[in-house]
Amino acid sequence: MNDSDALTEVAANRCFGGWHRRFRHQSSTLRCEMVFAVYLPPQAEQTTVPALYWLSGLTCTDENFMQKAGAMRLAAELGLALVVPDTSPRGATVPGDPDGAWDFGHGAGFYLDATQSPWSSHYRMHDYVVHELPDLLESRLPLDGRRGLSGHSMGGHGALVCALRNPGRYRSLSALAPICQPSACPWGEKAFSRYLGADRQSWREWDACELIRSADERLPLLVDQGEADPFLAEQLRPEALAQACAATGHPLRLRRHPGYDHSYYFIASFIDDHLRHHAAFLRS
Amino acid sequence: MNDSDALTEVAANRCFGGWHRRFRHQSSTLRCEMVFAVYLPPQAEQTTVPALYWLSGLTCTDENFMQKAGAMRLAAELGLALVVPDTSPRGATVPGDPDGAWDFGHGAGFYLDATQSPWSSHYRMHDYVVHELPDLLESRLPLDGRRGLSGHSMGGHGALVCALRNPGRYRSLSALAPICQPSACPWGEKAFSRYLGADRQSWREWDACELIRSADERLPLLVDQGEADPFLAEQLRPEALAQACAATGHPLRLRRHPGYDHSYYFIASFIDDHLRHHAAFLRS
Repeated sequence: MNDSDALTEVAANRCFGGWHRRFRHQSSTLRCEMVFAVYLPPQAEQTTVPALYWLSGLTCTDENFMQKAGAMRLAAELGLALVVPDTSPRGATVPGDPDGAWDFGHGAGFYLDATQSPWSSHYRMHDYVVHELPDLLESRLPLDGRRGLSGHSMGGHGALVCALRNPGRYRSLSALAPICQPSACPWGEKAFSRYLGADRQSWREWDACELIRSADERLPLLVDQGEADPFLAEQLRPEALAQACAATGHPLRLRRHPGYDHSYYFIASFIDDHLRHHAAFLRS
Repeated sequence: MNDSDALTEVAANRCFGGWHRRFRHQSSTLRCEMVFAVYLPPQAEQTTVPALYWLSGLTCTDENFMQKAGAMRLAAELGLALVVPDTSPRGATVPGDPDGAWDFGHGAGFYLDATQSPWSSHYRMHDYVVHELPDLLESRLPLDGRRGLSGHSMGGHGALVCALRNPGRYRSLSALAPICQPSACPWGEKAFSRYLGADRQSWREWDACELIRSADERLPLLVDQGEADPFLAEQLRPEALAQACAATGHPLRLRRHPGYDHSYYFIASFIDDHLRHHAAFLRS
């Protein structure tokens, strides 16, 4: 163990017979201190367990999902760990949005590996989420290496892209209200043009609708979307994902829910279905 | 309908097939504008439903419970409305703690009717919670007048005291980590000495351990308490409640949970048991 493997527990709360724990550590990938949260179900006191990684949306930290999604009740029953990273590198040494906006920089890492200065020295959330964090946790916590991936909004984009880029690394995949086609929506265009540069060709490898056309692996997708989501038409565009899946025969179960918005009230309403979706793959 | 009955909806989120709604209104009891939240289960679109009133703890607003407790899932299944008021009068015209502390004044109304100036002109949370709010909601929303009462910490004290002082008004009662004997703990002594004055005799009618000795009604109590709660010994004192119940034969199921703290992770872990406890009385 070297210094980069040091985990410092910053909180622990007993919850549904297991433990919600928060840790901070020095990320070698992101070159800053990071905080993340883990829920370990009761089963983890006896054996190793599979883990569902959850990627949160713009402005979130590790706390929003753990506090608001109501996921731990069923995770405890199903014997799933939950791993929730932050949404970007953080801290005084990490550059943020020059205008202080909430949709770029801190809280808005977009789960990619930036190529453009000054972002490329810290904004490598894809590498952090896919490699550094699981490698660290599977060596330090009772996780058995079976991984599922899900997320909301920007984190739904992140889940789709991280899994599609890394066949074999995840057993299950889902998303709630994901940004389906970041190359063609305002949030994505702002982020990609800065993190990846002006050449739109380079954006294709971080866009689920592009990646799905040439995917080596066809993990069945469960995607939920609220029809009263104020970001639906301009930013999220599930119809583009549905078209890409249809064009290549990628299995997609896209559910549209009348009246539901973009909030954690929407997430909480359907998170149990996602946990069951993942458990069916993770526990087999 | 007069002006004091005006409700303005400030948010509405579809959740578990029902609706989370927030309203503001001018409270005649508290002489300020108040915000509260209601969860209406799917059944409320067809019929009137019973309501569980939830009283939150120090520093909370109506939002903490609705966002963090994970109560709406089972409330939807059981057909219970949830009503969550704020924890004190608020606003620029309402005096708060002279030192800006979090355990008195704004966010710390202690669910009593203050008798001392300057508090008595606004701090009448007992009257608001027991009378004004149910009277308003039962005339405006599909609530059938069957009421349960529960709460956490200061709100657990509030639930016990409001129900014990008003026999016949509630069908069911429970609490999580309540302040059981406010007359004899630092939080309660600070609040009571200001809201009610120096005469400790007047405190007795706002102290569950005193009220329970002469109660006219014996609603069975469900009380959960975490054993790793940092406020357990000094502020909460469930053993005093157990003694008062034992002395008068008041039915009490007091459960002590090793490892659990005072947070919403504790509340979430046991809220379903409370919802089922209330549903058994409210739906009969």
